[in-house]
Amino acid sequence: MYTNLSMGALGLKADYPTAVDLAVKHGFDAVEGNLGWFEGLIDQARIKDAADEIRGRGLRLGPAGCPVNFNADPVTFGQQLAALPTKIGVLTAAGIDSVGTWVRPMSNDLPYRRNWIQHAERISLAAQVLGESGIRLGLEYIGPKTFWSTEMYPFVHTLAEARSLIADTGCDNVGVVLDSYHWYTAHEGVSDLLALKPSDIVAMDLNDAPEGREIDEQQDLDRRLPGATGVIDTPGMVAALKEIGYDGPVKVEPFMKSLAERDVDEVLAEVSAGLRKALA
Amino acid sequence: MYTNLSMGALGLKADYPTAVDLAVKHGFDAVEGNLGWFEGLIDQARIKDAADEIRGRGLRLGPAGCPVNFNADPVTFGQQLAALPTKIGVLTAAGIDSVGTWVRPMSNDLPYRRNWIQHAERISLAAQVLGESGIRLGLEYIGPKTFWSTEMYPFVHTLAEARSLIADTGCDNVGVVLDSYHWYTAHEGVSDLLALKPSDIVAMDLNDAPEGREIDEQQDLDRRLPGATGVIDTPGMVAALKEIGYDGPVKVEPFMKSLAERDVDEVLAEVSAGLRKALA
Amino acid sequence: MYTNLSMGALGLKADYPTAVDLAVKHGFDAVEGNLGWFEGLIDQARIKDAADEIRGRGLRLGPAGCPVNFNADPVTFGQQLAALPTKIGVLTAAGIDSVGTWVRPMSNDLPYRRNWIQHAERISLAAQVLGESGIRLGLEYIGPKTFWSTEMYPFVHTLAEARSLIADTGCDNVGVVLDSYHWYTAHEGVSDLLALKPSDIVAMDLNDAPEGREIDEQQDLDRRLPGATGVIDTPGMVAALKEIGYDGPVKVEPFMKSLAERDVDEVLAEVSAGLRKALA
Amino acid sequence: MYTNLSMGALGLKADYPTAVDLAVKHGFDAVEGNLGWFEGLIDQARIKDAADEIRGRGLRLGPAGCPVNFNADPVTFGQQLAALPTKIGVLTAAGIDSVGTWVRPMSNDLPYRRNWIQHAERISLAAQVLGESGIRLGLEYIGPKTFWSTEMYPFVHTLAEARSLIADTGCDNVGVVLDSYHWYTAHEGVSDLLALKPSDIVAMDLNDAPEGREIDEQQDLDRRLPGATGVIDTPGMVAALKEIGYDGPVKVEPFMKSLAERDVDEVLAEVSAGLRKALA
Repeated sequence: MYTNLSMGALGLKADYPTAVDLAVKHGFDAVEGNLGWFEGLIDQARIKDAADEIRGRGLRLGPAGCPVNFNADPVTFGQQLAALPTKIGVLTAAGIDSVGTWVRPMSNDLPYRRNWIQHAERISLAAQVLGESGIRLGLEYIGPKTFWSTEMYPFVHTLAEARSLIADTGCDNVGVVLDSYHWYTAHEGVSDLLALKPSDIVAMDLNDAPEGREIDEQQDLDRRLPGATGVIDTPGMVAALKEIGYDGPVKVEPFMKSLAERDVDEVLAEVSAGLRKALA
Repeated sequence: MYTNLSMGALGLKADYPTAVDLAVKHGFDAVEGNLGWFEGLIDQARIKDAADEIRGRGLRLGPAGCPVNFNADPVTFGQQLAALPTKIGVLTAAGIDSVGTWVRPMSNDLPYRRNWIQHAERISLAAQVLGESGIRLGLEYIGPKTFWSTEMYPFVHTLAEARSLIADTGCDNVGVVLDSYHWYTAHEGVSDLLALKPSDIVAMDLNDAPEGREIDEQQDLDRRLPGATGVIDTPGMVAALKEIGYDGPVKVEPFMKSLAERDVDEVLAEVSAGLRKALA
Repeated sequence: MYTNLSMGALGLKADYPTAVDLAVKHGFDAVEGNLGWFEGLIDQARIKDAADEIRGRGLRLGPAGCPVNFNADPVTFGQQLAALPTKIGVLTAAGIDSVGTWVRPMSNDLPYRRNWIQHAERISLAAQVLGESGIRLGLEYIGPKTFWSTEMYPFVHTLAEARSLIADTGCDNVGVVLDSYHWYTAHEGVSDLLALKPSDIVAMDLNDAPEGREIDEQQDLDRRLPGATGVIDTPGMVAALKEIGYDGPVKVEPFMKSLAERDVDEVLAEVSAGLRKALA
Repeated sequence: MYTNLSMGALGLKADYPTAVDLAVKHGFDAVEGNLGWFEGLIDQARIKDAADEIRGRGLRLGPAGCPVNFNADPVTFGQQLAALPTKIGVLTAAGIDSVGTWVRPMSNDLPYRRNWIQHAERISLAAQVLGESGIRLGLEYIGPKTFWSTEMYPFVHTLAEARSLIADTGCDNVGVVLDSYHWYTAHEGVSDLLALKPSDIVAMDLNDAPEGREIDEQQDLDRRLPGATGVIDTPGMVAALKEIGYDGPVKVEPFMKSLAERDVDEVLAEVSAGLRKALA
C-alpha cells in the first residue's frame, strides 16, 4: 500500500503544483492524479513531461476523478461518454492508470432495480472505454444510514451490493474504492474484506469516526483522521488488506472543516504520519 | 389503422419526394418519416414547410428510423445520444412523433442478462430524451429461430420478452413494433395480442410467409406480401388489433428481392390494395 | 366495490360465526374468508354448506389470508408449499377466490436484489398452485418510511415496485392489495391509480392518517378510520378506483387499539357507515 | 484431484455394493455417494457403519445426486424441499459432503429472465438447507448447441452464465460441476478456468468428443472417453485445474452405449487407467 495525498479530500485548497510540492515535503508516496490540471496543459508531450517531472520527484500518481457522471441527464451523459477518449488521452499521457467515483446511495425517482440497470450499464459503458486503454475504474459505496435513508429509494450502500453491481457490468477493470468509514457505517467486518481479491480493489480511504454516536447516527460529512478515536477498527482493516495482498493507494478523506483553519504543513505532517503509522 | 409506405421496407429505391408522390398516387395514408431527408433541409422552417406540404397532399408522416443504435460501441453510442436533441429538432419540426428500430435477437459476446442490462439502459437513455419532446420509440422483436439461434447467446425474440424489456426501461413512451412475421415465427397467437393496450404498440408490419416450411425453418429475409399465402393468420392479427383499438401505422416489409425487378407502380398498386384489403 | 368486514383488521376479537352475524347486522356486503375456521370443519361438504349458509344470509366471502409465508425459512416454506393444495381444497369448497398477504418492506440480511429474487420466485410458486384453482393472490406493499427504513436493506415499499415484482412472477393471477394508508405514505397520487387495470387489484383497504405529522413521520400502526381526519385523500382514491372499474372488496384496517375498548356494535356501525359513505 | 467411479455415468448397471467392489478392484479413489442406497438402510447407525466400511476399503465417497429438482412443478418442489432435512440426515450419516445436478439449458415456456429467477431462488432454497449441514451443491452447465437450441427459450449454457447464476443465489456453498465436454462445446478455453477459485468448483467430469464434427454439431449424448480422440483439450483443462489448486473428484460420463455391451472389468480398467493418465 502507498500513501496518496489528495488536498481536496482533506478540504484544503492548493493548486496542483503546490499539492505536488507538499506531497514531496511531507513524504507522501503519491499525489492524486489531477485530470483537470493535466488537461490544461493541452499538448500530449507537455502532459507527459509534467507527469514525468512529478515522478522524478519520487511521487506516484494516484487515481483521478472519473470524468463520467452516472447520474447525469441522458444527453450530458452521452456527451461525457463521447468525450471520454479525449480524457483518456490525457490520463494515458500522464500515466494515470485509474479513476474513481462514488455511487449515490439513494434516489427520489428511481426504484432500486431501475437505478441498478442505470448504474450497471452506464458504468459498463465508461469502463469499456477506459479498459481499452488499461485504465481501471473504482467505485466507492457510501455507508451512512443518515445519508442513504434520506430519499424515497435507498440504493447501493454496502460492499456486497457494490460487488454485485460491479459483476453486472461485465467489466474486469472495475473495482471498489474501500473507505473505512463506509465499511464501518455499513456494519461490515474483517471477514467481508478477506473475501476480496486485490484486483477487486482500486483504491482505499482510511478515516475514523467521532465518538459518542451510534453507527446508524454517524454523518457522512463528519469524520475523523485515521486512528484519532479508535471508533473504527482501522488496524483490523489494514491488516486484512495486507493479508489479501492489496498494494494500491491509500488516502485520507475526513470531511473535517477544522483542517482548513489550521496551518497546512501542520495538517499534512499529521496526516502523513498518521497514515504511515496506520499502514505500518 | 392507416397504411404507411416505406420504399426501403419494400426493397425499392426512390428519393423521398418520389416516395411521397408514389404514396399519393397509390392511395397510401402515410409515407415513412425520412429523418435523413428532412435533416438535409437544415433549416427548421424549411423542414416544417416541407412536412406541411406532404400533409397538404393528404399524407400522414409515419415513424422515422431511430437515430441511436443500441448495439454500437460505447463511444459511438455516446455520440449518438449527444446528437439526439439535434435529431429531435428535425423530427419535431417535421411533426414526426415516433421512431422505430429492432432488437438484435442474439449476441456472440453478451450473455442474456448482460445484454438485457445494456438494452434496458441504452433504450431508456434514448427514450427519456425522445419523451421530453413527446416522441415515442418502437422496438421490433425478431422471431425467426433461423436468426436468433445463430450466435452464442440468443436474446429477446418474443413479444413477452420485448414487453418485459420495455418495462425495465421505466419509460412510458416505448412500445413494440408488431410484425406479423415475427408474431408467427415466435409461435404467438391472437391471445398474446389481445393482452396489449393500444399504447403498447408504436407501429405494425403486415407480412406473410412462404408455404412449405416449418415455422422454425422460416427465414427472416424471405417473406411474402400480406395474404399472399395465408400461412400467417394476418386476418386474425388485424382483427385482434382492431379489437384492442390500435389506430397506428401499418406497413409491409416483405424482403422479396423480386419486387425490385418489377414495375414500381405495379408493385405499389398491389401492396396498397393488399394492405387496404387486409385492414378492411 | 363492496364492503368487507374483517374483525381482526379492526383489532376486534370474535369467533367467525359471530363475525358473520355482525357483518349481517351492520350491513356489510362481505365477511373475510376465514381459512382456519373453514379448515376446522374438515369435511368438504360441510365446508361448502357453511359457506352457502353465509352466502344465503346475503354476504359474500372476502379474501382469506395467504397460507404461504414468503419470508419463512426454506424448509417451512417448502412445507407450506406442499400443504397448499389441501388449503386450496378448503378455499375452493368454501368458494373463496382470493387470498392476500403483505410484502415485508425491509430486511437485515438480504440485499434488495437477493430479496427480489426470493420474493419473485416464492410468490410465483404459490401463485402457480393457486392459479390452477382460479384463486388470485393479492400483495400489499407497505408505505411508511418509519417502517421500511428500520433495517439494513429497505425493500419494496411503493406501488411501482410492487407492480414490477408482480410482473417478475410471470403469473397473471397476482395483483396488489391497495391500502390508502400505504398509497399516502408512499407519496403516491391519483395518477398512479389511474394507470391500473381492475385485474391489477385484488383487494383494497381504506384508512385515514392522524393529523399533525409529516408523511415520513406517519407510523404503520397508528392510523385512523377512513375520512376521520381527511389527511389522506380517500375520496380521490375511491373516485380513481371507480373510474378504472374496480369492483372488488374494501375493508378498514386502522390499527387503533381504542376500538377494542369500545362497544363492538357501536364500532361496527361507525365503520360500516363510514365505509359506505366513502364508497358512495 | 481424485478419481471417482459412477457406474450410472458410464451407462453400466450394478447395485451399489458391486460398484464399491469394482471401484476398489480397479483402483478408483472414490465411488459416487449413492443417496438412495444409503437411504434404504434406514437407520442412521447402519448408514454410518456402511459408509465407514467403504472408507475402510480405501475409498472416498463422491458427490450424491441432488434430491431437489429445480424444474419440478411447484408442489413437488415444495415436497422435495420439505423432505430435504431427512435426505441430509442420510448424507451426513454417510459422510457425503456434496451433491450435484445439472441446469436444464432451455425451456419451452419460461423466458430467460423468468427461468433465471426460478433457478436462482430454488437453488438458493435448497442450498441454504444443505449449507446448514456443511454440504455443497454443484451445478453442471450444459454446453452443446444441439441441445440448448431445441426449445423456445435457451437458458444457461456457459460457465459465465453459471457463475452469475450462482452469485445470484447468495449462497457460498454452491459451485459448478465442470465437464470438459461442456467446456468444449461452450467454446470456452483455459483462461476461463484460470479465473476460478477451487471453491468455485464442486466436481469435475472428463470426457472427450468424437472426431469429424463441428463444435456446434456435437451431441450431448455422444461423447468419448477422455483422451480417446484428443478433440477436447483435456490435458489443458487438467493443467489449469491443477494450477488453481482444485483437489476434488473427477469422473467420466461418456454416454457411450457401447460400453454396456463390453465386459465390465475391461471397461473399468480402461476408464480407471485413462482417468489416472489424464490426471497424472
